[in-house]
Amino acid sequence: MKELVKKNDGAGGEMMQTFLNKYVFKHFLETDGGEISLSMADDSAVMNDVVFTIDGHTVYPLFFPGGDIGKIGICGTVNDISVMGAIPMAVAVSLIIEEGITSETVENVVISMKEAALEAGVNIVTGDTKVVERGGVKEMVLSTSAFGKRMPELDRNFELAGKRKTRWLTDNNIMPGDKIIVTGTLGDHGMALFNFREGYKFESPIQSDVAPLNHLMREVVKKGGIASAKDMTRGGMANTLNELSSKSKVGIKIYEEALPVKEAVRSSCGIFGYDPINIGNEGKIAMAVNPEMADEVLKVIKRNKYGKDAAIIGEATDEYNDVVMATEIGGMRRVDAPVGDPIPRIC
Amino acid sequence: MKELVKKNDGAGGEMMQTFLNKYVFKHFLETDGGEISLSMADDSAVMNDVVFTIDGHTVYPLFFPGGDIGKIGICGTVNDISVMGAIPMAVAVSLIIEEGITSETVENVVISMKEAALEAGVNIVTGDTKVVERGGVKEMVLSTSAFGKRMPELDRNFELAGKRKTRWLTDNNIMPGDKIIVTGTLGDHGMALFNFREGYKFESPIQSDVAPLNHLMREVVKKGGIASAKDMTRGGMANTLNELSSKSKVGIKIYEEALPVKEAVRSSCGIFGYDPINIGNEGKIAMAVNPEMADEVLKVIKRNKYGKDAAIIGEATDEYNDVVMATEIGGMRRVDAPVGDPIPRIC
Repeated sequence: MKELVKKNDGAGGEMMQTFLNKYVFKHFLETDGGEISLSMADDSAVMNDVVFTIDGHTVYPLFFPGGDIGKIGICGTVNDISVMGAIPMAVAVSLIIEEGITSETVENVVISMKEAALEAGVNIVTGDTKVVERGGVKEMVLSTSAFGKRMPELDRNFELAGKRKTRWLTDNNIMPGDKIIVTGTLGDHGMALFNFREGYKFESPIQSDVAPLNHLMREVVKKGGIASAKDMTRGGMANTLNELSSKSKVGIKIYEEALPVKEAVRSSCGIFGYDPINIGNEGKIAMAVNPEMADEVLKVIKRNKYGKDAAIIGEATDEYNDVVMATEIGGMRRVDAPVGDPIPRIC
Repeated sequence: MKELVKKNDGAGGEMMQTFLNKYVFKHFLETDGGEISLSMADDSAVMNDVVFTIDGHTVYPLFFPGGDIGKIGICGTVNDISVMGAIPMAVAVSLIIEEGITSETVENVVISMKEAALEAGVNIVTGDTKVVERGGVKEMVLSTSAFGKRMPELDRNFELAGKRKTRWLTDNNIMPGDKIIVTGTLGDHGMALFNFREGYKFESPIQSDVAPLNHLMREVVKKGGIASAKDMTRGGMANTLNELSSKSKVGIKIYEEALPVKEAVRSSCGIFGYDPINIGNEGKIAMAVNPEMADEVLKVIKRNKYGKDAAIIGEATDEYNDVVMATEIGGMRRVDAPVGDPIPRIC
């Protein structure tokens, strides 16, 4: 029997890893190359000292509290470049539009991309537009690609981080003892979209946290001691920490009471049976930092407007092989990567 | 009344220029930058000596005689980098898949991308996969981005081309007297898709010409004297030559009898009332060459397997402001850019 593609095959969780390994990576590994290659499945690739990334965006609806598909498109690629330890230079935009939507909708997405690019200080230098017949896509999908160059402060950052596997802030660079920091509250983006879709358009105070984090990343690298950084998108913090743990071959222990979660997100998750650690952000980063530098790095993050709620939430450890959480009631439980994304089409 | 997006707004012709100027470029010009910038709307952008491009692909059906959406994805970006005078280094792939298609379909597209990348000698280094609910996209769309580096032979090429506006093979680089070369037969890709869609699946001998042309471009640049190059996709040769003419502010005069067109394409166009000069290719380039070098460059092109049918089809001239064609019956007619694409979703 033929296998059909299922929604969770593209949801960012474990099923997606299986699907990609079976049908995609197997073949693309034959054409792989570069210093940080496809086989490392990191946030960006690096070749010839060019840091390079792409993301497809299928957010629905296109506009939601706190953002829209255009803002996600720019911020997503800007953040993927930044968490490698690079400065995003240029973005390329591929728009695929369904005929019959209003030109105003297209223009509003474009304006939003422009504003995000201006805030990040990146140039939108090239693009492509296709219009398809009704049903060809639902309203609009877009893909954004970006390239960046190495932050000049990265060498000094690693002097303060100690000897590491790579000279970039890769997922495999964590060592036991590193402190784990998240730059702000968990699950804002996913719950903002979920509440909006479910019809709580006016009652819910939850806004998406979508934001360009390149300035924040530059500031922490200037401070120094960062080993690894990753933006927490689909599958939320749980998915991100599991990827970091398995690629670095190190356990990660976190403390539930240390997790920053907005009260509105916590209560909305409670009502619908979600756990904020599984819900995606679009403006938060998890990073691993040399423990001696962790407090100072935290201060730097908190000074940035996108890092006010940052917290040290745990540490890397060789006591465990995967991600565990000390709960508020005194227990210890394993944190698995979500199988699929509980909230689809959030990015 | 609100304006709605029409299919021809994304078809590569004049309507698309109007749409893009009104709703997209106006805003993105505020974030523009680099040596070859968005405002030049060339095949690729150049910034920090990195050549950078993106394309969205909405080919339907996904598989057709001579190729598939995956092959178009790789070849399209490889060619966009190559016609600037650059060597494509790395490709990034964004797959957006409709749930419920077979995994085999995805895998076959992936295999085809791999094969095209191996032939071109580029690395697929990063990617992103999203799966959307039924109706989110029709089967699959994909976007491909690539970056490249300057061909080392480009300076010598321009010594042989004479003084030009830019040091890349840009659309605005043509001068009166340049010979215009096309690297092969016109309209193969569009008519292959059209015949296949109309149900002439087995009778029609027409195959898409989709191919990676980076090796061919490198060979001609090594020979030298190329001023400008552009791959002829949506809107065919007519659209491409009009873009070259208007950006270079020079007339282009071509000779109908010199145009290479396969007999099957000519007769199929005749039946359906199409003109092969308006029909897209995916493996052909138009270029402008110093007249003293044109015969030698033509020889080099003809030695490449994708250039056997290449021909000198005319020249740039200051006698006209736009594109004119000396017809086989002895007349002279203006060649306009098609308003939309006569055959939609060909790339």
